[in-house]
Amino acid sequence: MRWLINGKSAVQLDAADRGLHYGDGVFETMALRDGIVRFHERHLRRLAYGCERLRIEPPPQGTLEREIAELTAGTPSGVVKLVVTRGTAGRGYGTRRTSAPTRVLSLHDDRVTPASFYRHGVRLRFCTTQLGRNRALAGVKHLNRLEQVLARLEADDDQADEGLMLDETGRVISGTMTNLFLVRGGSLITPALEDCGVEGIMRGVVLESAVSAGFETRICDVRRDDVEAAQELFVTNALIGIWPVRVCAGHPLEPGTVTRNLMDRLAAQGLRECAV
Amino acid sequence: MRWLINGKSAVQLDAADRGLHYGDGVFETMALRDGIVRFHERHLRRLAYGCERLRIEPPPQGTLEREIAELTAGTPSGVVKLVVTRGTAGRGYGTRRTSAPTRVLSLHDDRVTPASFYRHGVRLRFCTTQLGRNRALAGVKHLNRLEQVLARLEADDDQADEGLMLDETGRVISGTMTNLFLVRGGSLITPALEDCGVEGIMRGVVLESAVSAGFETRICDVRRDDVEAAQELFVTNALIGIWPVRVCAGHPLEPGTVTRNLMDRLAAQGLRECAV
Repeated sequence: MRWLINGKSAVQLDAADRGLHYGDGVFETMALRDGIVRFHERHLRRLAYGCERLRIEPPPQGTLEREIAELTAGTPSGVVKLVVTRGTAGRGYGTRRTSAPTRVLSLHDDRVTPASFYRHGVRLRFCTTQLGRNRALAGVKHLNRLEQVLARLEADDDQADEGLMLDETGRVISGTMTNLFLVRGGSLITPALEDCGVEGIMRGVVLESAVSAGFETRICDVRRDDVEAAQELFVTNALIGIWPVRVCAGHPLEPGTVTRNLMDRLAAQGLRECAV
Repeated sequence: MRWLINGKSAVQLDAADRGLHYGDGVFETMALRDGIVRFHERHLRRLAYGCERLRIEPPPQGTLEREIAELTAGTPSGVVKLVVTRGTAGRGYGTRRTSAPTRVLSLHDDRVTPASFYRHGVRLRFCTTQLGRNRALAGVKHLNRLEQVLARLEADDDQADEGLMLDETGRVISGTMTNLFLVRGGSLITPALEDCGVEGIMRGVVLESAVSAGFETRICDVRRDDVEAAQELFVTNALIGIWPVRVCAGHPLEPGTVTRNLMDRLAAQGLRECAV
């Protein structure tokens, strides 16, 4: 692990940072492969968009790129995490006396994903912890992640590889750390994220890839019944690419042809982990 | 400002703390008056309850009391903030490799509240930023506070003293940093917090005080119409006690007899700021 805080090598952060006190910031988790941060332009664009949504001044893109280059120099692969908070401040929600935004960059080892996850698929469960609906925050990869933490605890209790989360209206939104895709009657479906959830980078990549492959794609409301009736399911994120699903809430599934086709397309774009 | 982190004088925190990365923790904000932390037992009880709800091992109460005493020694008045996070960990929502919980204690100067706030009341507005509904988190004073930050920005834009927040079903829940009370037909009403909001310490104190004074009190769903039809409104928190409301969303109000009665009762309990 290596850390750069506001451009300086450091492992500690000002305890008055609003990231700690309110989760007042955004983050990105990026795959470093062959010395290159995969999809780094998309990540930095989403980060800037998230800052704008939260009325945080986004750090200059050039600064972030320079710091990412410094952090990753000499390391071929790993995970780069970038946190941007509104900065340090006195007590209270008001932002008037806040410093410039804080940049926290860290480089982590890759976690080893079992090859069987790609070959045979993963096990999903439905979590009872729900996602709160809030249009002001929906889509943004912000630092308020307690719902995901609690849902992940449930998934771990159950030894599931990933947990699916619903909102209180019964819509299935996403996994704790992934976006969800369903294949049904040849169409590719992923949940709409107007009210909650994170617009994953890999979700965007997969949607574009599916459209250019000629698949019918739909972004719409998804309910538990839809998930249970799907012919294929898979989950995505920027680090893992695509994980096919082999069991969802006890129902067995086969990693199917649409999933395989999309994995091959990602593999052809350089996502070696999707080549099985 | 003075800081104690895990019992040691420090102003910096491990950048790998889950408080920063996920808002994975709880906090208390306590009034120090005449060298005593007001309602400290209630605060520490709520903290332990919040930890339990989030499956965080609560720090021993004796440790917290000792550290609070050390932090406040020699200081007659101010604000004590206590943050407890799940601890430091590697990347990812899973909690398996997490350290012991982190304790961040800080002592801040009192912010000067204009005397007119108590005498003549404050101005409220309705914020457009909503509170997401989630029973798993409702009532808990956790570190996921982006909704409050965004609502506070709205209130500041409008030079309101406090902003009221609704959920997406149109229920009025609370202020950004306060709980709300309505007086209507002699009854004291405060919003139910089963789905969102924080169960404020002062809310509990005021409810108990109202019951012992013989007021009819109700905890129930409150809508915007109810707020606009109220004869008296006031907001509460542990630092301010009670602020009467003199304007709500443009409608003028008088700080009324029920509000004054309850302020007098708090003043008699030692909350000098409520003596006007």
